[in-house]
Amino acid sequence: MTTQPPPNADDAQLLASAVGQAMWARDNATQALGMTLGAIGPGTATMRMAVRRDMLNGHSICHGGFIFTLADSAFAYACNSYNLNAVASGCQIDFLAPAREGELLEAQATERAATGRTGVYDIAVRVLGGRQIALFRGKSHRIGGDVIAGLQPGA
Amino acid sequence: MTTQPPPNADDAQLLASAVGQAMWARDNATQALGMTLGAIGPGTATMRMAVRRDMLNGHSICHGGFIFTLADSAFAYACNSYNLNAVASGCQIDFLAPAREGELLEAQATERAATGRTGVYDIAVRVLGGRQIALFRGKSHRIGGDVIAGLQPGA
Amino acid sequence: MTTQPPPNADDAQLLASAVGQAMWARDNATQALGMTLGAIGPGTATMRMAVRRDMLNGHSICHGGFIFTLADSAFAYACNSYNLNAVASGCQIDFLAPAREGELLEAQATERAATGRTGVYDIAVRVLGGRQIALFRGKSHRIGGDVIAGLQPGA
Amino acid sequence: MTTQPPPNADDAQLLASAVGQAMWARDNATQALGMTLGAIGPGTATMRMAVRRDMLNGHSICHGGFIFTLADSAFAYACNSYNLNAVASGCQIDFLAPAREGELLEAQATERAATGRTGVYDIAVRVLGGRQIALFRGKSHRIGGDVIAGLQPGA
Repeated sequence: MTTQPPPNADDAQLLASAVGQAMWARDNATQALGMTLGAIGPGTATMRMAVRRDMLNGHSICHGGFIFTLADSAFAYACNSYNLNAVASGCQIDFLAPAREGELLEAQATERAATGRTGVYDIAVRVLGGRQIALFRGKSHRIGGDVIAGLQPGA
Repeated sequence: MTTQPPPNADDAQLLASAVGQAMWARDNATQALGMTLGAIGPGTATMRMAVRRDMLNGHSICHGGFIFTLADSAFAYACNSYNLNAVASGCQIDFLAPAREGELLEAQATERAATGRTGVYDIAVRVLGGRQIALFRGKSHRIGGDVIAGLQPGA
Repeated sequence: MTTQPPPNADDAQLLASAVGQAMWARDNATQALGMTLGAIGPGTATMRMAVRRDMLNGHSICHGGFIFTLADSAFAYACNSYNLNAVASGCQIDFLAPAREGELLEAQATERAATGRTGVYDIAVRVLGGRQIALFRGKSHRIGGDVIAGLQPGA
Repeated sequence: MTTQPPPNADDAQLLASAVGQAMWARDNATQALGMTLGAIGPGTATMRMAVRRDMLNGHSICHGGFIFTLADSAFAYACNSYNLNAVASGCQIDFLAPAREGELLEAQATERAATGRTGVYDIAVRVLGGRQIALFRGKSHRIGGDVIAGLQPGA
């Protein structure tokens, strides 16, 4: 099992890109929601999603669950970017403004802390180029194993 | 605008049922996810959702976003059950165990506090009749207006 | 190392009581704040604290930090009650009403989930016999080792 | 009542400094814990606290309640820095590493969002010049009134 991040920045970026592609290929959920993976790097990821009609709740605004799901997906790609399997153990979200049908949302995930098997990530959700929609904080836990089995870090 | 819960338990239950039906009729998001509203009462609601293939993430387990969305939906029906429009201001979820394709999940929402315009609700997500999947806590904020315009409480 | 809760309810209660006494004897922080341990059982604990003048903030109400500390202490006794060392990994608190000088606060901790090394606990803080002050949810993580070294569960 | 932040950066800084001094003068809680207010600006504040023996818990490390209290104090000064009375409505903290007796902790508060009466603040707690201890996120709510009655913004 891989136990450390790769030794230099270029290798870390290549590894993150490879992990992102591998996760995407088997990720039914984000694809079905029409998300796109904008960028991925060591401990970071950006995802986008347009608000569709089937995402609206009874108040005719985007159901908070889909905003959460977008943020949670960016979080997942960021916290798995070292090729070490990690899952969310807990998440917290503050909703700041409603999102409406047709708006394109972007979630940017940033690593705030990484100690042992645990990481803390902040994800900001905005209308692309516009107002903040939500702030999400997630805690990740490494569960053992690699995202891409057998790939050596830095190789 | 309605400013108080209705005066007796029967009326409160009738009002909650009417609100639940009205919300459901215009709620694209929960319908598209195949959810069913199991029960609704004053400050409480139960919703169910089966884990579909298009809800699986790259680890082949249910994407946490859909578990959150199920809990968030139960929360929404519970906190709007008094016919006073309310939205989620913030939510927190702890993931306890993975959910797998085909499993039927049930979210039960309970009111823990209600002071002024703010409410706190706990939502427990389980595999129906089985293990706990997640614990969710949501904070609601009343935004003015009725869910069913013009309906008098207790009428 | 102890790996399981003791086999019956009486033994579990005796163990929790012994753990509570041992923790209390070396717990400078809760003693310095004038707290009292009201009760302890397997996965539960009750603590009390009177709001002192030196706990008031610039708004002349109890600083939220002391309300948190009371809840966190009840949480600590509850999650260590099996004689398996545990620490808080994360906590969330919603403040419902201010607490004033001289009021006696009571925090009741209840276990909501326990899976592997992780536990989730809810702590409700009230003015004794009166209004709710705060709702706290804490996540615990077992770090290895016993609270009372060498004490066998059920012995 | 003041309804907007002052019009320029210098005035905003002067106002924040005046608010900080006024809050400090009547803040029994932070003074009793030996905290010092390192800096305050519009939406930001830095506070320090040394870990004293009477802050240690039964594991001989700093009780999480005091780490929370330090972060919560920095949060309070940051969210009141516009001279508009605000209180914490909810807070979440992740504990990353233990703090030991004698260590000097620093909490830095930063504004992440401000919409209407609600604000979201991030507070990072570190050993001064060293490792991260905790990450705190707080939500503030303006309750009406000024911190310094009658002081005009920008005056």
